[in-house]
Amino acid sequence: MFSGCQFSLYPMSDNFVEVILPAVEAMGTSPELRIETDDISTLVVGTPSNVFAAVERAYGAACRAGGHVVLSALFSRGCPGEPDDPLCTPQGPESATAEPVARAPGSAERQRAGIAIDAQFSIYPLGIENYMNSIAAGIDSVKQAGVFDRSKHFCTRLHGDIRDVFAAVEKTFSTAARETGHVVIHLTASKGSPSAKKASSHATHETTTHDQEKNHV
Amino acid sequence: MFSGCQFSLYPMSDNFVEVILPAVEAMGTSPELRIETDDISTLVVGTPSNVFAAVERAYGAACRAGGHVVLSALFSRGCPGEPDDPLCTPQGPESATAEPVARAPGSAERQRAGIAIDAQFSIYPLGIENYMNSIAAGIDSVKQAGVFDRSKHFCTRLHGDIRDVFAAVEKTFSTAARETGHVVIHLTASKGSPSAKKASSHATHETTTHDQEKNHV
Repeated sequence: MFSGCQFSLYPMSDNFVEVILPAVEAMGTSPELRIETDDISTLVVGTPSNVFAAVERAYGAACRAGGHVVLSALFSRGCPGEPDDPLCTPQGPESATAEPVARAPGSAERQRAGIAIDAQFSIYPLGIENYMNSIAAGIDSVKQAGVFDRSKHFCTRLHGDIRDVFAAVEKTFSTAARETGHVVIHLTASKGSPSAKKASSHATHETTTHDQEKNHV
Repeated sequence: MFSGCQFSLYPMSDNFVEVILPAVEAMGTSPELRIETDDISTLVVGTPSNVFAAVERAYGAACRAGGHVVLSALFSRGCPGEPDDPLCTPQGPESATAEPVARAPGSAERQRAGIAIDAQFSIYPLGIENYMNSIAAGIDSVKQAGVFDRSKHFCTRLHGDIRDVFAAVEKTFSTAARETGHVVIHLTASKGSPSAKKASSHATHETTTHDQEKNHV
């Protein structure tokens, strides 16, 4: 099973290069990960658990640099068109569809990072007719994890510490993998938006006019 | 059939608010579109053709503002969990699975905008077992449109004038809709990246080490 992520960091700053490069570097080098970049995104190949942890490290580092910074990430596992890679085969206690090991309750890594983010994600279980059940289970799962904010058209909004949000999304990924081999998640995470405080009041959720465009910054 | 888009603009600039607001406004107001925003994304609801045209207008306006600016967009049609909306029902010559009308060859709107962009997209035809055939057809389609750049893991890179890229992606959307009711496309478009010129030399495509991280800006 091939698994990995294409992700991009978007610091809304003139100094975006100085934020992106150290953040990508913060993933570190490991024989368990393959990392490739081009001008649009960075690819990380490895087990889902290692990939989620690496992307979380990169985005965490970008968030700590300050300002408004967004992560856009495409996580994929089991695409029939992708070659298998030994890097993607979990070793030891991490099986293909197990709970995320590194963030299991009680583990040292479960501690919060102190970075509050807003996020939204969509999950696509492919190749099966009853995929809507998998999507519903994924949404229930983030509710149970305490990071659900609200439903939007085409995606689900989340809010919480970066670690809790990533753990919850990773869990929906592994849970859906029990239903079908090929699962894709798109995650957008945002920190430091000047509109976030206003939006988090939940007063403007049902905006229905163009006049609310000022929220989207 | 409910159809629309959640999109975000990311100007890599201290003045990001001054780029985003006029760009969202450039979509205009129309009884054929419903537009809602929050701090993460802007929703556009309407027929696929109207929605693609609106998002193209917004991103085009952001590109004209100069600098490095990225669009991240989720286009969706036919999700069984979404309510139907009369706004999404094509009137007149635009049928649910027809060629995009506004950008049909020979139409006035088919002229190029003079904005060269790099992009990558993924298409998810949901609820069917033979979805890989639909994905392959979508990739063939962008090749025929002349905007194919190369395949990447999990997505396909495109290059061309913003109008040609949008027309090609919209066409894959309508083509896949002949196979299944529920189709999602994620599109990332980038203009003005300081790494793009280097990457477009095609010399660094097969980067396999962390040392190439500098390309991802």
